Amino acid sequence: MDAMRSSVIGASMLTFSLCSPAQAQYVRLAELEIDPAQLDVFKAAVTEGVQAAVRSEPGVLALYAVYEKENPNRVRVFEMYTDAAAYVTHLETPHFTKFRATTDKMVLSRKLFDAVPIVLGAKAQSPGTLR
Amino acid sequence: MDAMRSSVIGASMLTFSLCSPAQAQYVRLAELEIDPAQLDVFKAAVTEGVQAAVRSEPGVLALYAVYEKENPNRVRVFEMYTDAAAYVTHLETPHFTKFRATTDKMVLSRKLFDAVPIVLGAKAQSPGTLR
Repeated sequence: MDAMRSSVIGASMLTFSLCSPAQAQYVRLAELEIDPAQLDVFKAAVTEGVQAAVRSEPGVLALYAVYEKENPNRVRVFEMYTDAAAYVTHLETPHFTKFRATTDKMVLSRKLFDAVPIVLGAKAQSPGTLR
Repeated sequence: MDAMRSSVIGASMLTFSLCSPAQAQYVRLAELEIDPAQLDVFKAAVTEGVQAAVRSEPGVLALYAVYEKENPNRVRVFEMYTDAAAYVTHLETPHFTKFRATTDKMVLSRKLFDAVPIVLGAKAQSPGTLR
Protein backbone atom coordinates (compact mmCIF):
# COMPACT_ATOMS: atom_id res chain seq x y z
CA MET A 1 0.00 0.00 0.00
CA ASP A 2 2.90 2.36 0.64
CA ALA A 3 4.15 1.86 -2.88
CA MET A 4 0.65 2.50 -4.21
CA ARG A 5 0.27 5.66 -2.17
CA SER A 6 3.62 7.11 -3.17
CA SER A 7 2.93 6.55 -6.85
CA VAL A 8 -0.43 8.28 -6.59
CA ILE A 9 1.14 11.21 -4.78
CA GLY A 10 3.78 11.41 -7.48
CA ALA A 11 1.16 11.43 -10.17
CA SER A 12 -0.89 14.10 -8.46
CA MET A 13 1.98 16.55 -8.92
CA LEU A 14 1.74 16.14 -12.68
CA THR A 15 -0.31 18.44 -14.80
CA PHE A 16 -2.54 16.98 -17.41
CA SER A 17 -1.39 17.86 -20.86
CA LEU A 18 0.05 16.23 -23.87
CA CYS A 19 3.76 16.61 -23.21
CA SER A 20 6.50 17.52 -25.66
CA PRO A 21 6.01 14.34 -27.68
CA ALA A 22 2.82 15.87 -29.10
CA GLN A 23 5.21 17.93 -31.22
CA ALA A 24 6.85 14.86 -32.66
CA GLN A 25 6.61 14.71 -36.41
CA TYR A 26 9.00 11.85 -36.84
CA VAL A 27 9.03 8.57 -34.93
CA ARG A 28 11.55 5.76 -35.32
CA LEU A 29 11.41 2.30 -33.83
CA ALA A 30 14.42 0.09 -33.23
CA GLU A 31 14.46 -3.58 -32.31
CA LEU A 32 17.88 -4.87 -31.32
CA GLU A 33 19.02 -8.29 -30.23
CA ILE A 34 22.03 -7.94 -27.94
CA ASP A 35 24.77 -10.44 -27.18
CA PRO A 36 23.68 -11.63 -23.71
CA ALA A 37 27.28 -11.60 -22.47
CA GLN A 38 27.52 -7.88 -23.21
CA LEU A 39 24.09 -6.77 -22.09
CA ASP A 40 25.22 -4.72 -19.10
CA VAL A 41 27.83 -2.88 -21.15
CA PHE A 42 25.23 -2.21 -23.84
CA LYS A 43 22.75 -0.84 -21.30
CA ALA A 44 25.37 1.55 -19.93
CA ALA A 45 26.25 2.73 -23.43
CA VAL A 46 22.65 3.29 -24.48
CA THR A 47 21.94 5.18 -21.26
CA GLU A 48 24.90 7.49 -21.83
CA GLY A 49 23.94 8.03 -25.47
CA VAL A 50 20.30 8.79 -24.68
CA GLN A 51 21.16 11.26 -21.94
CA ALA A 52 23.60 13.10 -24.22
CA ALA A 53 21.07 13.28 -27.05
CA VAL A 54 18.19 14.53 -24.91
CA ARG A 55 20.37 17.18 -23.27
CA SER A 56 22.18 18.48 -26.33
CA GLU A 57 19.96 18.01 -29.37
CA PRO A 58 17.02 20.41 -29.81
CA GLY A 59 15.35 18.01 -32.24
CA VAL A 60 15.39 14.97 -29.96
CA LEU A 61 12.11 14.93 -28.03
CA ALA A 62 12.33 11.48 -26.49
CA LEU A 63 14.34 8.28 -26.59
CA TYR A 64 12.87 5.40 -24.61
CA ALA A 65 14.97 2.26 -24.40
CA VAL A 66 13.45 -0.83 -22.82
CA TYR A 67 14.01 -4.56 -22.94
CA GLU A 68 11.42 -7.29 -23.24
CA LYS A 69 10.80 -8.76 -19.81
CA GLU A 70 10.58 -12.32 -21.15
CA ASN A 71 13.59 -11.86 -23.47
CA PRO A 72 16.00 -9.50 -21.73
CA ASN A 73 18.46 -9.44 -24.62
CA ARG A 74 15.81 -8.01 -26.93
CA VAL A 75 15.98 -4.22 -26.66
CA ARG A 76 13.45 -1.84 -28.17
CA VAL A 77 13.82 1.89 -28.59
CA PHE A 78 10.96 4.30 -29.23
CA GLU A 79 12.39 7.52 -30.68
CA MET A 80 10.62 10.86 -31.15
CA TYR A 81 12.10 13.74 -33.13
CA THR A 82 10.73 17.11 -34.15
CA ASP A 83 11.15 16.12 -37.79
CA ALA A 84 13.14 13.90 -40.14
CA ALA A 85 15.98 16.44 -40.34
CA ALA A 86 16.48 16.17 -36.59
CA TYR A 87 16.95 12.42 -36.96
CA VAL A 88 19.62 12.94 -39.62
CA THR A 89 21.34 15.44 -37.33
CA HIS A 90 21.20 12.92 -34.48
CA LEU A 91 22.98 10.28 -36.56
CA GLU A 92 25.86 12.67 -37.13
CA THR A 93 26.47 13.71 -33.51
CA PRO A 94 29.66 12.65 -31.70
CA HIS A 95 27.70 10.88 -28.96
CA PHE A 96 25.72 8.81 -31.46
CA THR A 97 28.71 7.86 -33.60
CA LYS A 98 30.53 6.87 -30.39
CA PHE A 99 27.54 4.80 -29.27
CA ARG A 100 27.37 2.98 -32.60
CA ALA A 101 31.11 2.31 -32.65
CA THR A 102 31.12 1.08 -29.05
CA THR A 103 28.12 -1.20 -29.39
CA ASP A 104 28.29 -2.37 -32.99
CA LYS A 105 29.67 -5.82 -32.16
CA MET A 106 27.26 -6.28 -29.27
CA VAL A 107 24.25 -6.13 -31.59
CA LEU A 108 23.37 -9.52 -33.09
CA SER A 109 20.46 -8.22 -35.15
CA ARG A 110 18.95 -4.84 -35.79
CA LYS A 111 15.59 -3.77 -37.20
CA LEU A 112 14.90 -0.08 -37.68
CA PHE A 113 11.78 1.44 -39.14
CA ASP A 114 9.76 4.59 -39.53
CA ALA A 115 6.47 5.06 -37.75
CA VAL A 116 3.72 7.63 -38.05
CA PRO A 117 1.99 9.00 -34.94
CA ILE A 118 -1.71 8.32 -34.42
CA VAL A 119 -1.87 9.84 -30.94
CA LEU A 120 0.99 10.70 -28.58
CA GLY A 121 -0.57 11.19 -25.18
CA ALA A 122 1.51 11.94 -22.10
CA LYS A 123 1.27 13.82 -18.87
CA ALA A 124 3.52 16.83 -18.61
CA GLN A 125 5.59 17.39 -15.52
CA SER A 126 6.85 20.66 -14.16
CA PRO A 127 10.17 21.23 -15.92
CA GLY A 128 13.47 22.11 -14.35
CA THR A 129 14.74 18.89 -12.90
CA LEU A 130 17.14 16.52 -14.50
CA ARG A 131 16.79 13.05 -13.05
CA MET B 1 13.89 26.22 -44.07
CA ASP B 2 10.80 27.72 -42.48
CA ALA B 3 9.77 24.33 -41.21
CA MET B 4 13.25 23.72 -39.86
CA ARG B 5 13.33 27.09 -38.13
CA SER B 6 9.93 26.68 -36.51
CA SER B 7 10.87 23.28 -35.12
CA VAL B 8 14.07 24.65 -33.64
CA ILE B 9 12.19 27.56 -32.09
CA GLY B 10 9.66 25.12 -30.67
CA ALA B 11 12.41 23.01 -29.18
CA SER B 12 14.14 26.01 -27.66
CA MET B 13 11.11 26.59 -25.45
CA LEU B 14 11.54 23.17 -23.91
CA THR B 15 13.50 22.68 -20.77
CA PHE B 16 15.96 19.84 -20.57
CA SER B 17 14.85 17.25 -18.15
CA LEU B 18 13.71 13.71 -18.12
CA CYS B 19 9.97 14.15 -18.34
CA SER B 20 7.28 12.29 -16.45
CA PRO B 21 8.14 8.97 -18.13
CA ALA B 22 11.25 8.83 -15.93
CA GLN B 23 8.82 7.86 -13.19
CA ALA B 24 7.51 4.93 -15.17
CA GLN B 25 7.95 1.66 -13.36
CA TYR B 26 5.85 -0.37 -15.74
CA VAL B 27 6.01 -0.38 -19.53
CA ARG B 28 3.77 -2.35 -21.86
CA LEU B 29 4.14 -2.81 -25.58
CA ALA B 30 1.30 -3.67 -27.94
CA GLU B 31 1.54 -4.76 -31.56
CA LEU B 32 -1.79 -4.87 -33.34
CA GLU B 33 -2.70 -5.77 -36.89
CA ILE B 34 -5.83 -3.90 -37.90
CA ASP B 35 -8.38 -4.73 -40.58
CA PRO B 36 -7.35 -2.26 -43.32
CA ALA B 37 -10.98 -1.49 -44.12
CA GLN B 38 -11.51 -0.26 -40.55
CA LEU B 39 -8.26 1.56 -40.00
CA ASP B 40 -9.72 5.05 -39.84
CA VAL B 41 -12.37 4.00 -37.34
CA PHE B 42 -9.71 2.26 -35.26
CA LYS B 43 -7.50 5.35 -35.25
CA ALA B 44 -10.37 7.51 -34.04
CA ALA B 45 -11.19 5.03 -31.29
CA VAL B 46 -7.59 4.72 -30.07
CA THR B 47 -7.22 8.51 -30.07
CA GLU B 48 -10.34 8.91 -27.95
CA GLY B 49 -9.23 6.15 -25.58
CA VAL B 50 -5.72 7.54 -25.15
CA GLN B 51 -6.94 11.06 -24.48
CA ALA B 52 -9.41 9.85 -21.86
CA ALA B 53 -6.78 7.71 -20.13
CA VAL B 54 -4.12 10.43 -20.00
CA ARG B 55 -6.60 12.99 -18.69
CA SER B 56 -8.37 10.89 -16.10
CA GLU B 57 -5.97 8.23 -14.82
CA PRO B 58 -3.23 9.30 -12.38
CA GLY B 59 -1.23 6.15 -13.12
CA VAL B 60 -1.13 6.56 -16.90
CA LEU B 61 2.04 8.49 -17.75
CA ALA B 62 2.06 8.06 -21.52
CA LEU B 63 0.33 6.17 -24.30
CA TYR B 64 1.96 6.53 -27.70
CA ALA B 65 0.13 4.94 -30.61
CA VAL B 66 1.84 4.87 -34.00
CA TYR B 67 1.60 2.81 -37.17
CA GLU B 68 4.44 1.41 -39.23
CA LYS B 69 5.00 3.67 -42.22
CA GLU B 70 5.60 0.73 -44.57
CA ASN B 71 2.70 -1.30 -43.14
CA PRO B 72 0.02 1.18 -42.13
CA ASN B 73 -2.30 -1.47 -40.73
CA ARG B 74 0.32 -2.50 -38.19
CA VAL B 75 -0.20 -0.37 -35.08
CA ARG B 76 2.18 -0.24 -32.14
CA VAL B 77 1.52 1.25 -28.74
CA PHE B 78 4.18 2.17 -26.20
CA GLU B 79 2.56 2.44 -22.77
CA MET B 80 4.05 3.88 -19.58
CA TYR B 81 2.42 3.52 -16.18
CA THR B 82 3.52 4.46 -12.69
CA ASP B 83 3.37 0.79 -11.71
CA ALA B 84 1.70 -2.52 -12.51
CA ALA B 85 -1.33 -1.65 -10.37
CA ALA B 86 -1.98 1.40 -12.55
CA TYR B 87 -2.12 -0.87 -15.59
CA VAL B 88 -4.68 -3.11 -13.91
CA THR B 89 -6.73 -0.03 -13.02
CA HIS B 90 -6.50 1.15 -16.63
CA LEU B 91 -7.93 -2.11 -17.94
CA GLU B 92 -11.00 -1.65 -15.74
CA THR B 93 -11.87 1.93 -16.73
CA PRO B 94 -15.04 2.66 -18.71
CA HIS B 95 -13.06 4.28 -21.55
CA PHE B 96 -10.79 1.27 -21.95
CA THR B 97 -13.57 -1.30 -21.81
CA LYS B 98 -15.46 0.79 -24.38
CA PHE B 99 -12.36 0.94 -26.59
CA ARG B 100 -11.87 -2.82 -26.43
CA ALA B 101 -15.54 -3.52 -27.17
CA THR B 102 -15.62 -1.05 -30.07
CA THR B 103 -12.41 -2.24 -31.70
CA ASP B 104 -12.31 -5.94 -30.85
CA LYS B 105 -13.42 -7.10 -34.32
CA MET B 106 -11.11 -4.64 -36.08
CA VAL B 107 -8.01 -6.31 -34.60
CA LEU B 108 -6.77 -9.23 -36.70
CA SER B 109 -3.87 -10.07 -34.38
CA ARG B 110 -2.66 -8.77 -31.06
CA LYS B 111 0.67 -9.15 -29.28
CA LEU B 112 1.06 -7.64 -25.82
CA PHE B 113 4.11 -7.84 -23.64
CA ASP B 114 5.87 -6.41 -20.63
CA ALA B 115 9.00 -4.35 -20.97
CA VAL B 116 11.54 -3.07 -18.46
CA PRO B 117 12.99 0.45 -18.79
CA ILE B 118 16.69 0.87 -19.47
CA VAL B 119 16.55 4.63 -19.94
CA LEU B 120 13.50 6.85 -20.54
CA GLY B 121 14.85 10.15 -21.81
CA ALA B 122 12.56 12.99 -22.83
CA LYS B 123 12.48 16.73 -22.84
CA ALA B 124 9.97 18.27 -20.51
CA GLN B 125 7.69 21.04 -21.68
CA SER B 126 6.13 23.75 -19.61
CA PRO B 127 2.86 22.31 -18.39
CA GLY B 128 -0.55 23.87 -18.60
CA THR B 129 -1.60 23.34 -22.18
CA LEU B 130 -3.77 20.56 -23.43
CA ARG B 131 -3.28 19.96 -27.14
